This record gives sequence, structure tokens and C-alpha cells, in this order.
Amino acid sequence: MPDKPLKPHEIATDQALGADAVLGFIGHVETPWTTRAACPKQGSMEGPECTVIVAPPWDQALHGVENFAYLELYLWFHLARRDLLVIDPSHGGGPRGVFALRSPVRPNPIAVSTVRLLARQGNRLIVRGLEAVSGTPLIDIKPGRCPQSI
Amino acid sequence: MPDKPLKPHEIATDQALGADAVLGFIGHVETPWTTRAACPKQGSMEGPECTVIVAPPWDQALHGVENFAYLELYLWFHLARRDLLVIDPSHGGGPRGVFALRSPVRPNPIAVSTVRLLARQGNRLIVRGLEAVSGTPLIDIKPGRCPQSI
Repeated sequence: MPDKPLKPHEIATDQALGADAVLGFIGHVETPWTTRAACPKQGSMEGPECTVIVAPPWDQALHGVENFAYLELYLWFHLARRDLLVIDPSHGGGPRGVFALRSPVRPNPIAVSTVRLLARQGNRLIVRGLEAVSGTPLIDIKPGRCPQSI
Repeated sequence: MPDKPLKPHEIATDQALGADAVLGFIGHVETPWTTRAACPKQGSMEGPECTVIVAPPWDQALHGVENFAYLELYLWFHLARRDLLVIDPSHGGGPRGVFALRSPVRPNPIAVSTVRLLARQGNRLIVRGLEAVSGTPLIDIKPGRCPQSI
């Protein structure tokens, strides 16, 4: 899904990525941002309230999350292209490999966002700290480990 | 792939997880541990040297990783069962949802290990801090962000 032409030193692969494992979405997030361009580069604990919706039967796996102030949300960045090897980021520093960058563009576009948990309402979590487009699929939730490092 | 009977308060789902997205493995790790039982619960920066092997063409995406002291390795825990909703962990605390635990047992068994990068040798990274079974598939690498929190 190429969305813009490559810059001079950028490299894409035309080799197909393997189909080695399957992910099941367990829900999605609802945020104020409807396009990638509108999203902040990084989530902020002072950012807007967002909602995480966990689909059954996985809502049963939320039992106990209310004991944590911070959660890690594992998201699938479904809009990101997956074929780039080397990127020349607009924020400078010169071209480098996607594994030397935290860009959403990567072979398996998984993002981990640490969020502050404000409330749980059944299968819905109210959080701050997200940076994702509304509708982004959710693939996992883990208790947060290092809030001081955000 | 149930490997042991459920304890009294544990809950599994018999609802099939969706097949919503596909992961491609980009390499694997080589560690001293050949079974899950032999693995440490958590990686240690004083642990043994391990090797990360990145398969082509994704080795080209390593350009620049040598500038980072710490990397996040995204691993696919291929041996973990994926149908549990509530677990009664052996370390105590009573039964709770898998999203309130950092157990490897989860619908999409992705683990992020922060490791110290000792050396890069072409498509091989020598690291410390892993806790995974040898042969565990690699799905992503990102620069590490918070080494002080490990």
C-alpha cells in the first residue's frame, strides 16, 4: 500500500513478507484523530481521553486490570506500509534502517502505547496517552511496568 | 494447544480467535534454553550472551542499530496457548484476567524484551537480557527507550 514515492536513499523490498502467524483482533481504540496526519507523534498523559473497547469473549480477560494505573496497549497499525527497509526520516539524521527507528512503518506494524487508566466501564477502558487513529485494532493489553519513563 | 489441565478458577474460551492480520517472521533468536521450563522468568542484563539472526532482506533494515545500547526485540511466543481468559498464577494473588498479567499466555503471544546490544556482526546481533526459548521467532526490532527501568 505505497502512499508516497520513495526519497533518494530510501529502500523498499519487493520480496513478499512470509505469512507465518495469524493475529486475532480483540477490540479497537476510539480516539479524536481520524487520519494519520492528525495524530500526535507521541502520546501524552495530558492528551485527550480515549476509549479502548474489548470485544467478547476477551472482556473476561480484563478482570484485575483496574488495579493498575498504567497499561500497555498493543496496537496493530493497519494503515502502515510494510515493505520499507531504509527510511530517510523528515526529522533528520539521514537514511537508516527501520529497526533503528520507532516509525510506524515496519514489516509487522505493532505499536505498544503506555496509557494511564482512568476508569473501567465493563468492556470499555477510559485512558489517556494514546496517539493512534480512531479505529486502530487492539491485539493485547498488559499491565504497565515503567510509568516514570514515559 | 492445551498443555496442562485448567485449575479450578481458570477460564478458557472455545470461541475461535479471528484471523485478522498476518505476521511475517524476520528472523529468530538463539539462546541457551531449549525448553520453556528452562527459561528464566525474566531476562537479565547479567544473563548469557544470545544471538539474534535477522533473515534477508530484513538485515538491510539493521543499518544504524549499532548506535543504540539497548534494543527492544519483539518476539512471537509460538509455544504459548492462546485460549485462556482467566489464569490462577502459581506465584499467587488469585485468579485474574490475562490482561492483568504479563504471562506469555495470551490471545496474541507477543513479548517485547529489552536487551543490551553488545555487537553487530552483519545480520547477527549479540545481546544480553533475553529470556526466550532458542528458536523463538523474531517479528520486530526497535531502538530501546528506557534502559534505566529494566
